[in-house]
Amino acid sequence: MTRTLIKETPQKIGEQITLEGRIASRRDHGSIVFFDLRDRTGILQVVLQTNMANDLKEEDIILIEGVVKERPAKMENLEIETGKVELEASKVGLISKSQDLPFALKDTPELSLPVLLDFRPLTLRAEKTKAIFKIEEEVIDEFRKTLKSLDFFEFQAPSIVPTATEGGSEIFKIDYYNTSAFLGQSPQFYKQIMVGAFERVFTVAKAYRAEPSVTTRHLSEYITLDGEMGFINSWTDLMDTCETIIKNIFKRVELSCENELKILDAIVPEIKKNIPRIRMREAQQIILERTKRDNTKEPDLTPEDEKEICQWAKETYNSEVVFITHYPTKKRPFYTMPDPENPDYTLSFDILLKGLEITTGGQRINDYNQLVENIKKWGNKPEDFEFYLQAFKYGMPKEGGFAFGAERVVKQILGLENLREASAFPRDMGRIDGRLSNNE
Amino acid sequence: MTRTLIKETPQKIGEQITLEGRIASRRDHGSIVFFDLRDRTGILQVVLQTNMANDLKEEDIILIEGVVKERPAKMENLEIETGKVELEASKVGLISKSQDLPFALKDTPELSLPVLLDFRPLTLRAEKTKAIFKIEEEVIDEFRKTLKSLDFFEFQAPSIVPTATEGGSEIFKIDYYNTSAFLGQSPQFYKQIMVGAFERVFTVAKAYRAEPSVTTRHLSEYITLDGEMGFINSWTDLMDTCETIIKNIFKRVELSCENELKILDAIVPEIKKNIPRIRMREAQQIILERTKRDNTKEPDLTPEDEKEICQWAKETYNSEVVFITHYPTKKRPFYTMPDPENPDYTLSFDILLKGLEITTGGQRINDYNQLVENIKKWGNKPEDFEFYLQAFKYGMPKEGGFAFGAERVVKQILGLENLREASAFPRDMGRIDGRLSNNE
Repeated sequence: MTRTLIKETPQKIGEQITLEGRIASRRDHGSIVFFDLRDRTGILQVVLQTNMANDLKEEDIILIEGVVKERPAKMENLEIETGKVELEASKVGLISKSQDLPFALKDTPELSLPVLLDFRPLTLRAEKTKAIFKIEEEVIDEFRKTLKSLDFFEFQAPSIVPTATEGGSEIFKIDYYNTSAFLGQSPQFYKQIMVGAFERVFTVAKAYRAEPSVTTRHLSEYITLDGEMGFINSWTDLMDTCETIIKNIFKRVELSCENELKILDAIVPEIKKNIPRIRMREAQQIILERTKRDNTKEPDLTPEDEKEICQWAKETYNSEVVFITHYPTKKRPFYTMPDPENPDYTLSFDILLKGLEITTGGQRINDYNQLVENIKKWGNKPEDFEFYLQAFKYGMPKEGGFAFGAERVVKQILGLENLREASAFPRDMGRIDGRLSNNE
Repeated sequence: MTRTLIKETPQKIGEQITLEGRIASRRDHGSIVFFDLRDRTGILQVVLQTNMANDLKEEDIILIEGVVKERPAKMENLEIETGKVELEASKVGLISKSQDLPFALKDTPELSLPVLLDFRPLTLRAEKTKAIFKIEEEVIDEFRKTLKSLDFFEFQAPSIVPTATEGGSEIFKIDYYNTSAFLGQSPQFYKQIMVGAFERVFTVAKAYRAEPSVTTRHLSEYITLDGEMGFINSWTDLMDTCETIIKNIFKRVELSCENELKILDAIVPEIKKNIPRIRMREAQQIILERTKRDNTKEPDLTPEDEKEICQWAKETYNSEVVFITHYPTKKRPFYTMPDPENPDYTLSFDILLKGLEITTGGQRINDYNQLVENIKKWGNKPEDFEFYLQAFKYGMPKEGGFAFGAERVVKQILGLENLREASAFPRDMGRIDGRLSNNE
């Protein structure tokens, strides 16, 4: 037998075919039973005699033979592509039996987050969950496609790193043979090294943060979409590249995920021809004027500030995306390029989407001596950075880069409440697959 | 100024342009100096007055203005695309100065492996090194492209895992908040879970093995190209899919990397219309007959056996690739499907390329009860696998999968001596970037 995919059925009216898939639902009507059969390409109504249906139920996997029929006009389901046809079953075979489900799959969106994640292998099968990860796949693929079209080279960054470099405590330690190693907080050093060889590079990698608290915005392991660009004319080249990436991602999701957006009841955020760019200090001033909240001396925007400034950008520029630039030097890593006009601030930026940071970027220090000085100024030892420093010792062009958090991009596009919903297998303080019991 | 890329220069004869790049070499001829200038797109000869060249030397990054000229016919370099033109420089500016190099970049291929890796940020810039990673990029991209064309869904597998599952000791332990976690030895469980939702899935992920010895064939962190396929008719579907992947990869490298193959003096291995498939026991018998080495009772092929059977396949089928099938049940993980005709052996396979395993795969047990029984039989506790087992508890189609080691594929295509040469930043017992000193 050759398996017919459900999406092919509208072209097979009158034909005898074999389908394989899962029972998405069962409705008994006297001597007749209706299944909604699901495969990776869609859902189809199947009609069969009750005596053929036995005790078959939701999530059972079956093989089913029959003839494709047109449904009577008034019985059509115009919500789905296969809603004008159905299969009249002549034979049913069981491929795999499901045990009783803890909940109906269609109720997945109503589950509490802990239950959603406790049963992830099951809830991943729900229509809404699959739609989220289909969109994530497209987001990542578009990041890759856009940068390849701009002549960026893709490499695979390592995740085991030798020293706790960028930030002290929020790093995971590994028992590494007879010594210790760490999980990289970002592919930063490696993408800079690669710029020395390939000029423009990107990587789809993992980043690890031992976040000591559980928030709706953090994961212990997340997908980072990292790009780095040599021979820039100006640090604004980096923002221009990010702008292209975001626009392309939004366009791609809109065009390729029409059905998924419908399922998730989501609309891709609006983007203006140009994304507004404002300095962090200006943003704080605007927030002060709008809310009387005086954070103008703070070295960073608070989560509330990020929401407020996005609200302002929407009202003022009709843009749900905004660049915040010129973060204070003290708040950025040692490799960030200070603004020559005011070295207390850096040539750096974040991108906020609907109230949340989705991207961070900036120009880097490319002069060896300046970088060594900064490593010392940040309280680190240059000898711990010997490998990384080689990239600068032997010449490095003016360069910079950016990193998008893939789950955050998806969360914000879809308006999800918690970042964990955008991670197939989220890891945090309290969970790796199942809940962790050994935590004190 | 607008930067002209070196590959564009043959179309700019007579034009005034600006180039940015690195000095690949310097040759002084009296009052004239020749640079080979390198950017990400190629190499160009630049002619300048000695007084303009100052102390500029290899790896310095410069900006250079001038006019593109045709080279006299006898001075053409037909080895490179830009060999018929040169730049007559009128102005030179320094972008970044390199310190003295520990060796000339062109001597990189002669370095010992430890030195090659100690200076990785520098040696990555060598033509031969870049060619290796360009090929690696194409291999990974073709894996992705092939599986997408076969309707596989791409997901991002997590690397932090809760338990030491597949193999006991060769696993890295992580301090995870107040408990322990591990680095995944493969995305196996996650891709199987994803099959439950998406039927056909793949992931480009990292796998981690705490290999207690240093060999030319192992890395502590490597790139795994993992696919998993539900609703198979037969386990041979998996081999067919692998065959398509390999053929496509070979074709892609041949077509897209002509220049890189020339640089590396490599020829893509031959592949027959069909890759031969032989059982492990048959292979051992053949080896016995050819070498008088009797390993016919061994549960696996030794590295020497793998070389010998590849030699045999080349002589017999003119194929540098061979499938070895039906590995003993005891040597495979608990989830491997036993051969119903002889349950001491499994429906599993390896692919050997020029003497080395590059792929492993097989059909999996998809029946919940059988899987639980096997977990016990392998000495594990089913409760440790509760999360994974959900995927089977709630119905799982007949399925299986495969994993390609990306670095191994590249190593074997190119005939590299050591797997580390095919890893940009190899990690092993003795090295993470630099050499580890704390090892006892």
